[in-house]
Amino acid sequence: MKEESKRRKIIKTTHGEIQAPFFMPIATKGAVKNLLPQELRQIGAKIVLGNTYHLWLRPGDELIKKAGGLHKFMNWDGPILTDSGGFQVFSLGARAQKNFGKSGVRLTEKGVEFSDPENGKKYFMPPEKSIDIQLNLGSDIIMVLDECPPFPSSYEYAKKSLELTTRWAERCKKHFEKKVKNKKNRPLLFAIVQGSVYEDLRKRSAEELIAIDFDGYAIGGVAVGEPREEMHKILEWVLPLLPENKPRYLMGLGKPEEIVAAVNAGIDMFDCVIPTREGRHGRLFIWKNNVIASKAKQSLTNIDNLASTRLPRRSEDGAPRNDKYFYETININNEKFKEDFSPVDASCDCELCKNYSRSYLRHLFAVKEPLALRLASVHNLKFYMDLMEKIK
Amino acid sequence: MKEESKRRKIIKTTHGEIQAPFFMPIATKGAVKNLLPQELRQIGAKIVLGNTYHLWLRPGDELIKKAGGLHKFMNWDGPILTDSGGFQVFSLGARAQKNFGKSGVRLTEKGVEFSDPENGKKYFMPPEKSIDIQLNLGSDIIMVLDECPPFPSSYEYAKKSLELTTRWAERCKKHFEKKVKNKKNRPLLFAIVQGSVYEDLRKRSAEELIAIDFDGYAIGGVAVGEPREEMHKILEWVLPLLPENKPRYLMGLGKPEEIVAAVNAGIDMFDCVIPTREGRHGRLFIWKNNVIASKAKQSLTNIDNLASTRLPRRSEDGAPRNDKYFYETININNEKFKEDFSPVDASCDCELCKNYSRSYLRHLFAVKEPLALRLASVHNLKFYMDLMEKIK
Repeated sequence: MKEESKRRKIIKTTHGEIQAPFFMPIATKGAVKNLLPQELRQIGAKIVLGNTYHLWLRPGDELIKKAGGLHKFMNWDGPILTDSGGFQVFSLGARAQKNFGKSGVRLTEKGVEFSDPENGKKYFMPPEKSIDIQLNLGSDIIMVLDECPPFPSSYEYAKKSLELTTRWAERCKKHFEKKVKNKKNRPLLFAIVQGSVYEDLRKRSAEELIAIDFDGYAIGGVAVGEPREEMHKILEWVLPLLPENKPRYLMGLGKPEEIVAAVNAGIDMFDCVIPTREGRHGRLFIWKNNVIASKAKQSLTNIDNLASTRLPRRSEDGAPRNDKYFYETININNEKFKEDFSPVDASCDCELCKNYSRSYLRHLFAVKEPLALRLASVHNLKFYMDLMEKIK
Repeated sequence: MKEESKRRKIIKTTHGEIQAPFFMPIATKGAVKNLLPQELRQIGAKIVLGNTYHLWLRPGDELIKKAGGLHKFMNWDGPILTDSGGFQVFSLGARAQKNFGKSGVRLTEKGVEFSDPENGKKYFMPPEKSIDIQLNLGSDIIMVLDECPPFPSSYEYAKKSLELTTRWAERCKKHFEKKVKNKKNRPLLFAIVQGSVYEDLRKRSAEELIAIDFDGYAIGGVAVGEPREEMHKILEWVLPLLPENKPRYLMGLGKPEEIVAAVNAGIDMFDCVIPTREGRHGRLFIWKNNVIASKAKQSLTNIDNLASTRLPRRSEDGAPRNDKYFYETININNEKFKEDFSPVDASCDCELCKNYSRSYLRHLFAVKEPLALRLASVHNLKFYMDLMEKIK
């Protein structure tokens, strides 16, 4: 696995190549919250992530197809990965149940039936439908439909679930191949390894999916509430089984230190709501490269919520370097930033840090100006983009 | 007054010259909602409007002074006009009363006492304080503190109110001159003509303020609920009295046809929440230059909420031209735009119209993506900027 982490993988899509490891800003409903595509380009984003479930319900995949595909619809000309919607079907099923008193989600061998949490309308999604929707959207990287078991799940449940996920993956693959046959611009199809926290199930899931043969492999069912050590164990079990030359995607993660650890373990692709969601709450990531993160120093410099980490870095020849990176998160709503006229992060060249002070951003949050969310989001996403660059 | 409207006035400020007539986007709390200064520049905005009342309460004028002034604080290097806060003191007083059971506003000869509607904290604003705050903000155009009587107001009330406003204007002027004496970069000081809907009071207000001698004159107490004809009468009474060579500012107006009428009557400066507020509700202004706005045509083309107007235009030599401009407003939330893949306004080159379809914008509103507000705001402001250009 040590050797593994030195690879520099290039992922080729119809809308361009991307060098791994990379982070995908989330454009669930066809827009990254508060930001325009050119701003994503500016901070170095190469690929965004859309969601099959949300775009199917609103505005509909047929509409987006008529619009010329999701790229044109949202004015993003880089690659797009679409999640299959499996996760949302299950996580939002409960809301439909609460709102409309209907059974939120009904899972059968054929597919999954669920109600729209907005209006109670029934939908049925077999694995083939998920593929059709993603093809209509014009996605560059298509995910198979999976069942994502909650944490904790019993061994028996996790076993049955992964078996279903494998059968669905097989159907997805078959349907996908039929649909893209003779097509010039063939998207990539990724499978999702499940199996909860059980070693034999995770390994079995990986082996069965590899036997079907996909363009890439995601590890799902993490970041669903399991303890952090479980995530590391899952990577240790699964990654050595996955083919070297195919991209590996860890779904829904994570904090900067988790991403660093996962890249070191051999993961290529990430998506996470953390930078934008934290930003919208006024919590900002900043680099602390010159700070010795001793407890004493921390209290002296009055750093709040310190979450420092050491990011290993490699020099050009692949040998480890001694550079240390630390970061902290600050809550800009804190009183102490009221008259702090310095930039949020002097080492950052995002729109926020180039042109505005901590004091100004704090003011925007205090008076609920929507610009606050925009500036904080662009900064935190830039931090994540920088993080991936530093890891490279 | 016909002659008057042909003038091309240049207003000189410390942060640059502006050619009248012009429209000022509203940055009440130090930010135009959802938009960054560079976006305002792109659509042709030359000056923005801040609010003394709001910025005094949060984050405070002393803080902004420490930050290097409002220009630096909000990263806007063009001129800034600040409203004195008189209007807000009175209009928000009721909210403080409701929230904290305190008498919201107490008006005396000395000044006005009011409670912060957010926390009930008491403030006292004499006219001199309003000037001090605006000087701390570093405003380019400072407004005197006035009392803005509601509509309707009795003759007696309006008379007492305008007399107070005149005395306050005199105090503002005296205090201002003392403070800016020997200063190199002297801001402009504008007075506000009041007098409700009473001809003799409006004229008296104008004459008294002119006698004190200000750098410009605003007409206040309009757009407070009075019938539209009253506004036109007020302009007819007041404008002939105002000095030719000084800017005239009609506060808080208005719809495009009202702005056209007011420019024709001799007004130079405008501010209004309409473009941004309407935009945030999905109502968009679009040009209809090639549409014959007959009732029949309207129903044929299914134009909703038609509010067409004819905008007179002058050629270079000042003679009227035959160009006709029509506009309409559309509500993008309307079902009929669901699969409308054309731009909101094909003749517009704003960010929204250049890169996105009606269908996409409708989708963003439907799923409550904050980008919707941003794109709609930038478009409507661009429409207002174009409107001013077309008038010129």
